[in-house]
Formats: sequence, C-alpha cells, structure tokens
Amino acid sequence: MTGGLIGAVDIGGTKIAVGVVHPDGILLSSEQAPTLPEQGFESAMQRIADMLKHCADGRPLVGVGVGCTGPVDPLLGVMGNMELLPGWEGSNLSLYLEKLTGLLTVLENDADAAALAEAAWGAGRGAERFIYVTLSTGIGVGLVFDGRLYRGVGGAHPEIGPHVIQADGPLCPCGVRGCWESLASGTALAALLPPLSAEQICQQAEAGDSQALAAVGQVARFMGIGLANLINLYTPDVIALGGGLMKSRPLFWPAIQQTIRQQCRLVPYEQTRLLPAKLGGQVGLAGAAAAWLNRQQPPVEDDELLYP
Amino acid sequence: MTGGLIGAVDIGGTKIAVGVVHPDGILLSSEQAPTLPEQGFESAMQRIADMLKHCADGRPLVGVGVGCTGPVDPLLGVMGNMELLPGWEGSNLSLYLEKLTGLLTVLENDADAAALAEAAWGAGRGAERFIYVTLSTGIGVGLVFDGRLYRGVGGAHPEIGPHVIQADGPLCPCGVRGCWESLASGTALAALLPPLSAEQICQQAEAGDSQALAAVGQVARFMGIGLANLINLYTPDVIALGGGLMKSRPLFWPAIQQTIRQQCRLVPYEQTRLLPAKLGGQVGLAGAAAAWLNRQQPPVEDDELLYP
Repeated sequence: MTGGLIGAVDIGGTKIAVGVVHPDGILLSSEQAPTLPEQGFESAMQRIADMLKHCADGRPLVGVGVGCTGPVDPLLGVMGNMELLPGWEGSNLSLYLEKLTGLLTVLENDADAAALAEAAWGAGRGAERFIYVTLSTGIGVGLVFDGRLYRGVGGAHPEIGPHVIQADGPLCPCGVRGCWESLASGTALAALLPPLSAEQICQQAEAGDSQALAAVGQVARFMGIGLANLINLYTPDVIALGGGLMKSRPLFWPAIQQTIRQQCRLVPYEQTRLLPAKLGGQVGLAGAAAAWLNRQQPPVEDDELLYP
Repeated sequence: MTGGLIGAVDIGGTKIAVGVVHPDGILLSSEQAPTLPEQGFESAMQRIADMLKHCADGRPLVGVGVGCTGPVDPLLGVMGNMELLPGWEGSNLSLYLEKLTGLLTVLENDADAAALAEAAWGAGRGAERFIYVTLSTGIGVGLVFDGRLYRGVGGAHPEIGPHVIQADGPLCPCGVRGCWESLASGTALAALLPPLSAEQICQQAEAGDSQALAAVGQVARFMGIGLANLINLYTPDVIALGGGLMKSRPLFWPAIQQTIRQQCRLVPYEQTRLLPAKLGGQVGLAGAAAAWLNRQQPPVEDDELLYP
C-alpha cells in the first residue's frame, strides 16, 4: 500500500469538493466551493490547486485523484462532452493540474471512483466481485473485480442506466425505450406524482400516504428487476446501493428482494449480498483518493495470461 | 503453454463426443456415442474412458477436459440438477473419471467451455474482454476476461437467458416474465409460427416468405435488445455469436445492428466487434480442451491485489 497522503478532488456540476485523504481512507481535511463552470476550465483548476494547497497545510502529498461527473477519458485524463460542465470538453485535466501542483494526477468517472472507495473501505471490502450502484436522479454503476476497476474496450466506462428492462416502455431522453433509468431513478419516481420531488414522495410514503406508497412500490419493483439482471449477469459477491433514493431504503428493500427471488432462480442469488453503501457523504473524496491508489497498481503482466 | 495432448469430452443430453486435442486447439481424433442417460452415470463414464483410450491410440494424454450441459459445479467437478441427465445429480465426474483413466480431469459448463475455445482459437482471439453467446433452443453465455474465465460468487456461472428485457412480457418456464430467452431464442421463434421449427422458419424466411420474415424480424429485434444490454453493461472488445440460429445469420444481423446503434448511445459501441463464432461443430471438443488448459493457469496472487 502506497504510504503518503493523497489529494482528493470531487467535481460536480454545482460544487467542487477538495480534501486530503489518508491512504487508509480517512478524510483528514476538506473544503468546498461552487463549480462556476461558466467561468471556464482554467479558473476552476486554479481554485482546485489553491484549495489543495490550503487543505494540505504544508504536509506533502503523493499525488492527486479526481472524481468527475462523466463522461471522461480516464486514461488520457481528458474531459468528455458533459452537459453539466459546458465548454470544458477536450481539456486535459490531469496534465493541467499536474502543471499547477507538481503532483501526478489521475482522473476517473465519479461512479467508478465511488465504487473503488466502497470496495476499499466500505460495503465491498473483501468482495472478489463487487458492484456499486447509485440510485439517484440517474442511475450509475462501477464494477470492481479482484480489487481492480473493470474497464471496457478502450477504457470505456460501462453504463447501466440505458440497459433495457421493458422493451415497450416509455421513451427516455437517452433515446431508449424502457431503459432502467427511465423506470427506476429518482426522475422516474418524481414523474409519477407531479409536482412532488422524489424526496418529497419518499417522505409522504414514509408518513403512510397511499398514493406515494404506490409510486414507491412501482419504482421499487423496477429497481429489483434491474438488480436481478445484474445478479444473473455478474453473479457478484456484493452489490452496494448508494444514492439519494437509498436514504429511504426501507421503503424499497422488500420489493427489491422479492423481485430478485422471483427472477434469479438459475443462479445462487442468496450468495450475493445486497448491502447499503457505507461511506455516505464522504464517498466523493474517498473515491477520488481510491482512484489514485487504484492507478498505482502494477498492470497485469502478459505472461500471466494463457492466451496473450 | 502446457505441451501435451489433451483428452476432450463433450456431454450433451443425447450424445457424448470424445476426442484428442492438440494444445494449439487442433482436433486430432474423435468419436461419439449416444448418452443413454437412463443407463446411469457410471455406465456413461466407463464408455467415455473406453472412447478416450481408443482416440488416444497409445499416445500419452496430459489430462482430460469435460464440457457438460449445465448446471455443474466446475470447481468440485460435481453434476448439478439437470433435466437432460436425470439421476446424475451429485455424482463427482472429475473424481470418477480420474479413477478410471489415471488422468487429472476438469469439468466445465459447456457454454463456458465453448467461450474459452473461441477466446483461445476462434472469434475472441486476442480480445481482452470477450463474450460468447449461443443463440439456439435456449440462450447461453460465457465471459472470458484477460484470458481467464469469469466466475461468479462461489464459482457460479452467470446466466444471461433469464435477464429481463420486457418486464410485462410473456411468462417463461424459468419463472420470469419477459426474460431474454423467452423472446429471442429458437424456442421463441418456433412459438410464433406453429407447427414449424425454428430451422424451418429460417428456411422459409430465406425463401422470402413474408410471415416467416416477420417472425424472424421480431426475434432479431429482441436479440438486438439483449445484445445491446451486454454492450452497455460490459463494453466488451468482442461478442461472438454461435448456436443454431446463427446458421441463418444474415436474416438477423441488420436488425441486431440497428437496435444496438439505437440503444448504446452512451458507450463506444462501434468499438465492440460483433462476430460470428468460428469453431462451428468442433466447439464442443475444443471447448473441453480449452477448459482443461484454462484450469492450468496459476491463480492470481493475493499480493497483486491492492485490497486483499
């Protein structure tokens, strides 16, 4: 395990959090500021460098990990075409921050970063095959197998929100009919009882309102269908569920578990542990640090492979 | 690469094939016989041992690989509860064949074995993340990442047939409504135009029959929805398609590709190569040999993992 303190940066559409994380995952100091994406990429990078210096307070850092709302190119460190950060596309965050700080900087999709943190220090600790799912406004995923982040072809981040669970379902803005995100996200829940927000619907359901309970029940069943698909397709050791909707976990849990029992008869679903995510509000900065640590692993050697 | 000749056994519900395979995947000799499951497990094992001896014809074998219709426990070498081989459940195939032959014997699910063969010598050669899908009476899958077979919790084989693509769809015998197998398999195709078989429907579609073409088109769209789900969820380098329905591949290909283009907008789907499987009728015995070879790899050492 690499020993030094890690600079951690969590970039979202509205705020940027910066902190210093111990290699055991403990957050030692942090601060945050609005993202102000319209002031441009370089301005944000300068603020991040200043906050890093302030948080470190003279202590040396071994490197900087950055978790960022997607899409990003994690291997090149380049920002993709993201709605939440208009005008930042094509900027090389890793190189730019390295120039400002003198520290090796790695960039990661924020769901992947969160998955790495939960795998290292949270609900996925010790799990050989670990899946982190965030159920929030949208649905995100990160896969960690044998302690390594699973990356697809060319380093691509797998997407779980657009996977179809109801071929003749409603049309989602992502262009797909009946995708999981359009049926099981906070956005899907809010669409069932306008003008209430997903959070308000959960609160009313917790207070026993029958309309709110019916809406939550429908979304919970769709959550279960997608999670059962993950269990059939990956037969993982642990799935951890995070994100805003899971603050009302008891509302959703029974329907999720019942759907999994119905839908996973050919795999040992009872061996897959379904757990709440553990790191809560710290998962962003812990994830950034975990992303940095994960990138320090040596690559798998070709001569370990049977068919190189 | 282990150097010696490998004994290969492919056990299905109606026939058993046995052969000798060169470590480069070349089938050197083979024979086959009816399974006769009702004569019992021990009788079948004795016939397999006799056929192995006959195929080897005095040449030494380094071990025996067995691909078998599922479910099986690959790590213990034990047969599961399988419809096609009644009464065989609980028998330890690996130990029994080892006693009869004196050769180390490994057992693998036949879809996993086929995936390993296609990864080593067929359509998945050189692919870091490789998925083999067999579209036949049912739908099977095998995942090979970095040259290693992906196994789930406790060694479980992932199942792709029961993954749900139409939550309100028809009820499948597997107990699930709208699973992929109930909508995109040979069985699903045959159900659309009774009393024709899937093969007959494909033949009529190839001859231009409009009813047959409509049935094929519907099944091809569902094939595409499930394959698009795989691309979103795994972002693999290669998906190889095998199985009986793919003998009529040109009938299904355009709708599959169109569906993938529509449904995979957030991942670089154009980087995932969709290929026909290459090994054809030899995939069963080649798979058995590949399963044996794959099991000879050293396990990943714990100290290679960041979070052991």
